[in-house]
Amino acid sequence: MYQGGYTGKILRINLTDKTIKEEKLPLEVAKDFIGGAGFGIKYLFDEVKPGTDPLGPGNKLIFAPGPFTGTTIPCASRISVTGKSPLTHTVGMCLSGGHFPAEMKHAGYDVLIIEGKSEKPTYIWIKDGEVQLRDGSKVWGTRTFDCQQIIKDDLNDQNVRVACIGPAGENLSKLACIINERRAAGRKGLGAVMGSKNLKAIAIRGNGTLEIASKERFKIARGEMLKAMKESPVLYPQFALTGTPSNVDNTCALGIFPAKNWSATGKFTPVEKIGVEALESRNVGKEHCYICPVGCSLLRLARTGPYAGILSEGPEFETLYSFGGQTGVDNIDSIIAADRLCDELGLDTISTGVTIGFAMELFENGILTITDTEGLELHFGNHQAMNRLIYLMAFRDGLGELLADGVKIAAGKIGRGADRYAMHIKGLELPGYDVRGAKAHGLSYATAYTGGDHNRGYAFQEIFGLPIPYAVDRLSIEGKGKLTKWNQDVRTATSDCPTMCVFLLDTAMAPMATENTASLMEAVTGLTYKPQDIEKVGERINNLARAFNVQEGFTRAEDTFPERLMTEPLESGASKGHFISKEDLKVMLDEYYAARGWALDTGIPTREKLVELGLGSVADQLGV
Amino acid sequence: MYQGGYTGKILRINLTDKTIKEEKLPLEVAKDFIGGAGFGIKYLFDEVKPGTDPLGPGNKLIFAPGPFTGTTIPCASRISVTGKSPLTHTVGMCLSGGHFPAEMKHAGYDVLIIEGKSEKPTYIWIKDGEVQLRDGSKVWGTRTFDCQQIIKDDLNDQNVRVACIGPAGENLSKLACIINERRAAGRKGLGAVMGSKNLKAIAIRGNGTLEIASKERFKIARGEMLKAMKESPVLYPQFALTGTPSNVDNTCALGIFPAKNWSATGKFTPVEKIGVEALESRNVGKEHCYICPVGCSLLRLARTGPYAGILSEGPEFETLYSFGGQTGVDNIDSIIAADRLCDELGLDTISTGVTIGFAMELFENGILTITDTEGLELHFGNHQAMNRLIYLMAFRDGLGELLADGVKIAAGKIGRGADRYAMHIKGLELPGYDVRGAKAHGLSYATAYTGGDHNRGYAFQEIFGLPIPYAVDRLSIEGKGKLTKWNQDVRTATSDCPTMCVFLLDTAMAPMATENTASLMEAVTGLTYKPQDIEKVGERINNLARAFNVQEGFTRAEDTFPERLMTEPLESGASKGHFISKEDLKVMLDEYYAARGWALDTGIPTREKLVELGLGSVADQLGV
Repeated sequence: MYQGGYTGKILRINLTDKTIKEEKLPLEVAKDFIGGAGFGIKYLFDEVKPGTDPLGPGNKLIFAPGPFTGTTIPCASRISVTGKSPLTHTVGMCLSGGHFPAEMKHAGYDVLIIEGKSEKPTYIWIKDGEVQLRDGSKVWGTRTFDCQQIIKDDLNDQNVRVACIGPAGENLSKLACIINERRAAGRKGLGAVMGSKNLKAIAIRGNGTLEIASKERFKIARGEMLKAMKESPVLYPQFALTGTPSNVDNTCALGIFPAKNWSATGKFTPVEKIGVEALESRNVGKEHCYICPVGCSLLRLARTGPYAGILSEGPEFETLYSFGGQTGVDNIDSIIAADRLCDELGLDTISTGVTIGFAMELFENGILTITDTEGLELHFGNHQAMNRLIYLMAFRDGLGELLADGVKIAAGKIGRGADRYAMHIKGLELPGYDVRGAKAHGLSYATAYTGGDHNRGYAFQEIFGLPIPYAVDRLSIEGKGKLTKWNQDVRTATSDCPTMCVFLLDTAMAPMATENTASLMEAVTGLTYKPQDIEKVGERINNLARAFNVQEGFTRAEDTFPERLMTEPLESGASKGHFISKEDLKVMLDEYYAARGWALDTGIPTREKLVELGLGSVADQLGV
Repeated sequence: MYQGGYTGKILRINLTDKTIKEEKLPLEVAKDFIGGAGFGIKYLFDEVKPGTDPLGPGNKLIFAPGPFTGTTIPCASRISVTGKSPLTHTVGMCLSGGHFPAEMKHAGYDVLIIEGKSEKPTYIWIKDGEVQLRDGSKVWGTRTFDCQQIIKDDLNDQNVRVACIGPAGENLSKLACIINERRAAGRKGLGAVMGSKNLKAIAIRGNGTLEIASKERFKIARGEMLKAMKESPVLYPQFALTGTPSNVDNTCALGIFPAKNWSATGKFTPVEKIGVEALESRNVGKEHCYICPVGCSLLRLARTGPYAGILSEGPEFETLYSFGGQTGVDNIDSIIAADRLCDELGLDTISTGVTIGFAMELFENGILTITDTEGLELHFGNHQAMNRLIYLMAFRDGLGELLADGVKIAAGKIGRGADRYAMHIKGLELPGYDVRGAKAHGLSYATAYTGGDHNRGYAFQEIFGLPIPYAVDRLSIEGKGKLTKWNQDVRTATSDCPTMCVFLLDTAMAPMATENTASLMEAVTGLTYKPQDIEKVGERINNLARAFNVQEGFTRAEDTFPERLMTEPLESGASKGHFISKEDLKVMLDEYYAARGWALDTGIPTREKLVELGLGSVADQLGV
């Protein structure tokens, strides 16, 4: 018996030589990194050497649920996927939900490390500790939903859970994601990493159960969590009914719903067309992740025009931003269709939509001509062109080839000043909050170890006005450095590692996140934590991830914004006149690095900080 | 315990008053009608009165597998669906395979009779004898594959098997089918009957087993069947590898692959584009019906253009005909896409493709103009227009509304001589054999109780040259009346009732079909049959079905062909010069009615024949 909540096992599969090994998960790794993203980043740092080609056999893909996953703690069926990102060359880490994460725990593994490259298309089949590499030719080329069903039929087991890539991943689009059920490990191009290994899918079936170290403590800690969920004025009364799309209404009200490639934020605010009310007539039902009592994910059915009858789980807020605001499209059914098409083809909806919005602005400005687009009228708002372009991108066909790797690479190929319109940080297309009106949120975009990512230090203080740990003015830069460190560390430790749904943190758990995580960790695993230990785990992981990026050549210079955000004030709406000047950024970064204990001039972690976090060997490796 | 192979139970669900009843299956019904189509037609005749509106609450839908279904007899996981057809107003009966049929038997039922009309969208959930009517609003409007998955999630059981309709059935298209897994109970618009009842789906899970009356006899009879299958020079060596598409090659060679709405048979023979070899590069794997060792159904993946990545189980020969030959389309990937789209939207591929080919010929001849088609360039060969039109038909949108109910109704609306181009018999669009070069096959089209249907008396003697029960010349009319009676009765009794895959009859079992069916029936059920009793069951059912149609006003006058087949000889290919003149038809019909013991002038069964078959009360009802 291992520590409760952990299976104690790492499964290592080398696709080059077809070796399959089980290793013991060291208890000190469990203690120091908790699980999920923590494990992913730990093994990425240790095993993927600087300069590794992200699409070469040297890169690895690390799947890790957390110690809460697969227990009866609700909202914990999450899995992190980590590798070196082909899109950003930083740490690539993202999470997905559904049933796959709990299934992996029940099958007996805390970590799955995939190495090397298969000679032929293959898929992995894991059943309760038995592992096979199977012929993937039957599913190579298929869309993700077909792939999942064919594999279930192939294994003659409809209860198998499958994570897979679509054509986009096979075609090495750097916007490719990994899909399980209707859910995506979406960003940073990890689908292309999977494709580069000729790995189409991972199928899992697990019948095991997980031990709880202290059932008594567990009952209490879980009870506290359930009570906080029940008492939240937001979680069940609002969030469970509408899901994330309410953020369209919210961000439009705040004047921070980015529009038309960030050129019309505050002007184009299609709340009545693509917000909560508009979606109501499209709602057909809910989907729940494994034992989740909330069910924030709604199935929505397109009702009109050439999209009628197309269903999607979603679109989530970020997709409404990317295929709505960002592209100037306010046809909700076309957005539902785009969402579904991305899921089927295995494309990240955020990066894909942002890339299309980018191409649209280039077209509007004459940088891309009708010859470049092969006849596609890429005006803002052209939802048919948008849906067609998704397809072309997944297959790298014509204009799709130019755009298949996101805005940074496309801008480089196009030249002609296109980079001015490329809305990304470190290569990752920006998500759906115009940070000119939410400055800690912006600082987190600038400093997140994954590039322009909303989920590594989400500033709910600014977006939802939650006064945790203290109230802030979203338009001010004051105190945003310290806040961002807190947001990043707490989110990492209480969501990305145990692994717990981020929406729980934002709606119910924020006031007690570290306390409850400490209690649950102790109850589940028997390892002892104080709340500040939990925050320290988050800090450790953010430092280790930063160290990985430093080795890849990232320094302070890359912690920045697209020029537009620093020079063009918002022209309309509730954040009118605001932007983040270069001086503002400098002030926030200085405060942030100081709070982090990183060198102000380079943004590189200091030896003192690394040693304090038990990362002395990392300091040695960095030469600091 | 009931007779082995039968569960002994009829499940009757009235959607109007929500009553759910179990009734005993009378043993004499089992004996006289075997199962499947036999049960369907028996209860349709007894319970659906003449003149009933097929889309009103008075129509019924009868699902019936056979006594072999769910046992270890291979290739028997088939289910018949019977109701009054809204397309033809005749008996509507078709069969589907997959796992759903065996699941129904394992859940405890031989027959499911659905009556009335639900007030709101609903679906039926049957689990091992427990039955619920559940809210169908979550799946109403969805495509068939989504619907199946959502219901599995809704029931929290991934092993459920679901039969459902798509948007086409909801929109009461008379071409709508019922889909389970990737398979269709395709023809005669039974999907619209389901839609008219506000019934979206039937979900079944069964864990029961079926008794075998005599295990010893069973072993012998099943062994004989397996031996015949193994020894067939066709079944495993050819058919299992290529499936039905080999018939494209075969019928093109015979000059009977109908092309361009039957105007260019023998001229347009796209073997190299859409035949077996062309499909080879699209094959990705096999699908098997429940315990079928053959797996004739291949998964195929479109590879090029806007269709890349679209997968279908199929296209079967009939779909290659309807979306290929019939429409003049030789782009194989567009046909794969059309096949998938029909499955998703719940449209019969044969009728839909034939209807589009019909519209294309009207467009080519100026009977439909570009104004009628709202800009769609409906030339033969326009595969993009074809795929677009499928969508419009399912949603009754624009031109789709005109065509959604098939060629007969569309021709009536269009006028201007359009009926000359409407290739149907009794309203059912013609399947993929140009019967001008296969005359018994033609006679079966003309006389089948379901209208222009290839599956009610398939003349494998003509299509494959099998000399069973004797060799015939496909181009001659000689002896075709008697042969057609034999083909219809044997096929009904040995395929449609027990229920056994028709492909088995055509490839391996024909020489011993009635003998083996008699042996298996006796072994499975304990009821005793001689081979001639089996044939007699087929005759009984064909007579009862005819009686149903007679009550609906059908007589000899409707046993005919579209004018084109009787007046335009084939202009090219191996059947050049042939057609079926009105005189030829008269000769064949006279011989057929004589063989059947039906009145020559009216085609109505005689009292003598009906009494001989134990259908005296039917004779009373018909007043003969």
